[in-house]
Amino acid sequence: MYEIGVVYRSIARTETMVADRFAGFGSATVHEAMGRVGLMKPSIRPIYAGAHVAGTAVTVLLQPGDNWMLHVAAEQVRPGDVVVAAVTAESTDGFFGELLATSFKAQGARALVIDGGCRDVRALTEMRFPVWSRAVSAKGTVKATLGSVNVPVVCAGALVYPGDVIVADDDGVVCVPRAAASATLDGAAAREASEIDKRAKLASGVLGLDMYRMREPLAAAGLRFID
Amino acid sequence: MYEIGVVYRSIARTETMVADRFAGFGSATVHEAMGRVGLMKPSIRPIYAGAHVAGTAVTVLLQPGDNWMLHVAAEQVRPGDVVVAAVTAESTDGFFGELLATSFKAQGARALVIDGGCRDVRALTEMRFPVWSRAVSAKGTVKATLGSVNVPVVCAGALVYPGDVIVADDDGVVCVPRAAASATLDGAAAREASEIDKRAKLASGVLGLDMYRMREPLAAAGLRFID
Amino acid sequence: MYEIGVVYRSIARTETMVADRFAGFGSATVHEAMGRVGLMKPSIRPIYAGAHVAGTAVTVLLQPGDNWMLHVAAEQVRPGDVVVAAVTAESTDGFFGELLATSFKAQGARALVIDGGCRDVRALTEMRFPVWSRAVSAKGTVKATLGSVNVPVVCAGALVYPGDVIVADDDGVVCVPRAAASATLDGAAAREASEIDKRAKLASGVLGLDMYRMREPLAAAGLRFID
Amino acid sequence: MYEIGVVYRSIARTETMVADRFAGFGSATVHEAMGRVGLMKPSIRPIYAGAHVAGTAVTVLLQPGDNWMLHVAAEQVRPGDVVVAAVTAESTDGFFGELLATSFKAQGARALVIDGGCRDVRALTEMRFPVWSRAVSAKGTVKATLGSVNVPVVCAGALVYPGDVIVADDDGVVCVPRAAASATLDGAAAREASEIDKRAKLASGVLGLDMYRMREPLAAAGLRFID
Amino acid sequence: MYEIGVVYRSIARTETMVADRFAGFGSATVHEAMGRVGLMKPSIRPIYAGAHVAGTAVTVLLQPGDNWMLHVAAEQVRPGDVVVAAVTAESTDGFFGELLATSFKAQGARALVIDGGCRDVRALTEMRFPVWSRAVSAKGTVKATLGSVNVPVVCAGALVYPGDVIVADDDGVVCVPRAAASATLDGAAAREASEIDKRAKLASGVLGLDMYRMREPLAAAGLRFID
Amino acid sequence: MYEIGVVYRSIARTETMVADRFAGFGSATVHEAMGRVGLMKPSIRPIYAGAHVAGTAVTVLLQPGDNWMLHVAAEQVRPGDVVVAAVTAESTDGFFGELLATSFKAQGARALVIDGGCRDVRALTEMRFPVWSRAVSAKGTVKATLGSVNVPVVCAGALVYPGDVIVADDDGVVCVPRAAASATLDGAAAREASEIDKRAKLASGVLGLDMYRMREPLAAAGLRFID
Repeated sequence: MYEIGVVYRSIARTETMVADRFAGFGSATVHEAMGRVGLMKPSIRPIYAGAHVAGTAVTVLLQPGDNWMLHVAAEQVRPGDVVVAAVTAESTDGFFGELLATSFKAQGARALVIDGGCRDVRALTEMRFPVWSRAVSAKGTVKATLGSVNVPVVCAGALVYPGDVIVADDDGVVCVPRAAASATLDGAAAREASEIDKRAKLASGVLGLDMYRMREPLAAAGLRFID
Repeated sequence: MYEIGVVYRSIARTETMVADRFAGFGSATVHEAMGRVGLMKPSIRPIYAGAHVAGTAVTVLLQPGDNWMLHVAAEQVRPGDVVVAAVTAESTDGFFGELLATSFKAQGARALVIDGGCRDVRALTEMRFPVWSRAVSAKGTVKATLGSVNVPVVCAGALVYPGDVIVADDDGVVCVPRAAASATLDGAAAREASEIDKRAKLASGVLGLDMYRMREPLAAAGLRFID
Repeated sequence: MYEIGVVYRSIARTETMVADRFAGFGSATVHEAMGRVGLMKPSIRPIYAGAHVAGTAVTVLLQPGDNWMLHVAAEQVRPGDVVVAAVTAESTDGFFGELLATSFKAQGARALVIDGGCRDVRALTEMRFPVWSRAVSAKGTVKATLGSVNVPVVCAGALVYPGDVIVADDDGVVCVPRAAASATLDGAAAREASEIDKRAKLASGVLGLDMYRMREPLAAAGLRFID
Repeated sequence: MYEIGVVYRSIARTETMVADRFAGFGSATVHEAMGRVGLMKPSIRPIYAGAHVAGTAVTVLLQPGDNWMLHVAAEQVRPGDVVVAAVTAESTDGFFGELLATSFKAQGARALVIDGGCRDVRALTEMRFPVWSRAVSAKGTVKATLGSVNVPVVCAGALVYPGDVIVADDDGVVCVPRAAASATLDGAAAREASEIDKRAKLASGVLGLDMYRMREPLAAAGLRFID
Repeated sequence: MYEIGVVYRSIARTETMVADRFAGFGSATVHEAMGRVGLMKPSIRPIYAGAHVAGTAVTVLLQPGDNWMLHVAAEQVRPGDVVVAAVTAESTDGFFGELLATSFKAQGARALVIDGGCRDVRALTEMRFPVWSRAVSAKGTVKATLGSVNVPVVCAGALVYPGDVIVADDDGVVCVPRAAASATLDGAAAREASEIDKRAKLASGVLGLDMYRMREPLAAAGLRFID
Repeated sequence: MYEIGVVYRSIARTETMVADRFAGFGSATVHEAMGRVGLMKPSIRPIYAGAHVAGTAVTVLLQPGDNWMLHVAAEQVRPGDVVVAAVTAESTDGFFGELLATSFKAQGARALVIDGGCRDVRALTEMRFPVWSRAVSAKGTVKATLGSVNVPVVCAGALVYPGDVIVADDDGVVCVPRAAASATLDGAAAREASEIDKRAKLASGVLGLDMYRMREPLAAAGLRFID
């Protein structure tokens, strides 16, 4: 863990059929199904609205102001992957732009999640290659110092192992450990199903206070209503 | 003030006819008409561009990471209200999402202003329920600790009493005390009227320096022009 | 330098033909062509997506919460200029809105770059007057204290002399010193040309590792591949 | 409320005997005794360690970059007061320094709490005039625009009325409304008394789990111990 | 991993003799010896200057605004431990104060590292119980929602397993995985030894340019000296 | 300007006798004497309290996460210099520590001002080598990419030319252009002299309102006193 200067070529990806099914669920639903863990910090935002992807993680550990390892990572990408890039220090530089996106896309990557900056956002938007990043910046980077590919990384506060499932949408980015993927899918599906009925009731004017039977616990907690 | 564990059911709302007329004015105009006070901090941003609402405040005091009182607040909403939620500590959690929005909308709420995070922004955008928040986050919350409903709150630096008028648009959120609502409306209308003529003059090439008669005070303050 | 209370009327603008050609290049390309310098910090963001301008700088030094000098600057604007406004302290107030934009546009300004806030963003978007700012805020300002116009300013970390070229797009804002403008244009054009071929290769599946001949230097730096 | 350009000369201060007794309690204890409300945000920090004051609030509303009203406030200070200064926009300028501190001290002020910056911190430390501020900055301010004195203000997220009790120490700043002062004192004293015994038990090795009888509620909440 | 609601009682601590030897090295030296990884973000700061500890990690996962699990963790502390507390969301609340410190100390804990706030800093300073935290805040917390104890946590960007070595001083906090502890100690010792000679040479006026033989690589990189 | 990869060996330093006299004045006084310009942002803070230096600037432009040029700069230091280091992107890495400080001190440097992080703060404090930085961080840096020495730099928002005077104390850091040094000294001395009398008057209870004759302009601005 935390090795510098290594590239793991063989990683245990979550099964494609499992990973792909996550695209049917939002990051909030998946995060709830995991027991409210696994989210990246809200400082990671999509560069354009409406993108929604799920895929298997190829991880990258970058040095600040240096995007060399993103080029190394491109070779490790398989169709269906989402590249997840952490940086050893906080950095908003533009590590990623149109050329790298062209290459990532050609290798089959579905998206990039980076705890740093990206640039060429107009071109990325036009080619529909979604990026979740902590900043947009035209600032270029060098290619001088090694990091790693496919080691476990901490990206925006979330621990990501290569092969984990990444789900990203307008609400943020969640990482599902490979071993928890199937169970989480079941939980997400159950949650979604239960929400259909709830949504209809709430839309008809039923109050959550009644639907969730909150009045008794609220009273027990001491809530007072004053006219 | 600052009571925890209470819900005030009877609040003195600004008259509907008065509150509704504020929808014709932007937050900047209203803020100027109030004498440049009453604005929330610019960290509060709309989740989608173009929303513009005015309504009467139902206030909520939340605990960090806990959205229980939003469910309690839903019952207090009357058509034309805007829910204003403060948190007792800085928090970016996703206190509010599609289900609560469905309920709020069914009760007649026009918007939510929250000094915390919200989630399901794609669904909220599609159902056109506008939210002004300090963050977007998939992070869920618990329902364990009491706050209050319809007590005075400080939300993003602005003091809001239940029943005050809230005006929110792309520029931010302003709170107009109920007692000042009518006078503020008059001031806003006067300001807007005076701007029509100014806009035309400026568009024709007249300089603000001349239109506002600034040359003399600038010279008096010592401004030097150097060729 | 740093004079307070002065307006320089005669500034040496980069030639129009040169400045205008920069509109064909993105801020990232121009920044690279300058040797990776000259960028403003990424805290400066456009108020709407898709704007892309190049022009000659008219500079303004503002006092916090005071927009008096923007009115003074309007008189110094010539068609093709971009106004660049620094503030003597960090401030997010709404120094600039629809009326000033109407005036700036009438004088021929193409955009405003401000290390402070702006307001009326909906109106500015509709009239297509782009602003790059550090905040959006309805907060109004006063007209009480002198700053300067057309002195060198530090705006969001970048040094800008009056007459320099400003290039701004979705990725950020870069300043090209007048003396470096022609050479930078050549560098930007060469870079763009070289990218067309690279983009095609990467899109066809060629790896950057091979195209940029990185395998040898990576091995020399000690990168290990593990199966 | 929120009036600009007014100075209230007569304010209802909390009784001196009551206010002074708060100096025996830390801000954390007082905040707990109030029901966990009334705290300013943790961005407000003391300029030197170890200061601990309690006093009655004289409030000031400042404009960004302008300290005129602090001079006006000096005249309203009575021995035992703590000046609380809010700013209409976020600002880190150095509104307050040695000269104003000399004047405030001569009038009997015990401290300044300011949601802005202060300067001359070495001199202030030597003269033992404590300041809680959001920044230290040598940046000077002007005297050009009116604010107000002794209106209710929101300072760092807390609502402060003139005459309220302010308690400030290394942990932060809390405001106790005048009407709640006596009851809060009683609560703080009770809390302190109960902590003496608790401290001794914990120091002897008794666990909070047992002392607070948490084992049952933890088990009820589902906590599992795994060997 | 990431389990909520569990307490692992048996953890594999780094050997005491190994962990204790880390107290002889600063966090910067240890971080270098690990290959420049393992550091927490610089937002984590000591509450008083001069503290320097090394110990074995007992980990805690807290919910925002809730310190229940710190009480649970106290029972798991063994002499020589350092408690490391992560929070599932960004929070500056005062999770920890004098009473908990008394209990932790009685159980043998050497310090607390928390990605949240702490309070009673004056008392903690007097009792010399060091805390590294992201904030100081008088804000109290509740005891309502489960987290976990002795699960792997991400604290301020660093991954910490129970039993890892924590080294903390004025420069920050570094986590050394148990398996890497011995090798890291050797590296740190070697580094320290080599610095003694370097320090003497630099103090005598020898330049790093010569001592590190940088002149040739600088020239090769293209550095130009201009008289 | 903004050249990368160059070291200017011959710089025009402000005369030693002039530069040294600045040590008698605080940064706030100097900043006022310059007309309230020239300050670095308040994010730059001293690593220990009480340091106060003045000296001539040797400037450094660093790349993020890379401290190579600080070693190059050491050779350019002359007794009485203050090294001022800017970074091409925001970075909190620990660019500077005990070894470099030993070298800088041996060459005669009085201090370092860096818009990045530093480490070994305990050792730096013990050897009394003051540093003003934006962060403290144990994070190490590489030596791989060129920057420059003795080019003009923008450091924390202030433009610094090699040879300018730097004045730094607990309140912050101000840069005085070489050409303005003498006049600024005179202004600072005059300001200090005038403050002695003012301080005595204020200490005796005279109000600033009277001493500065503010009552009339306040009334003219519309200030109302209400009993």
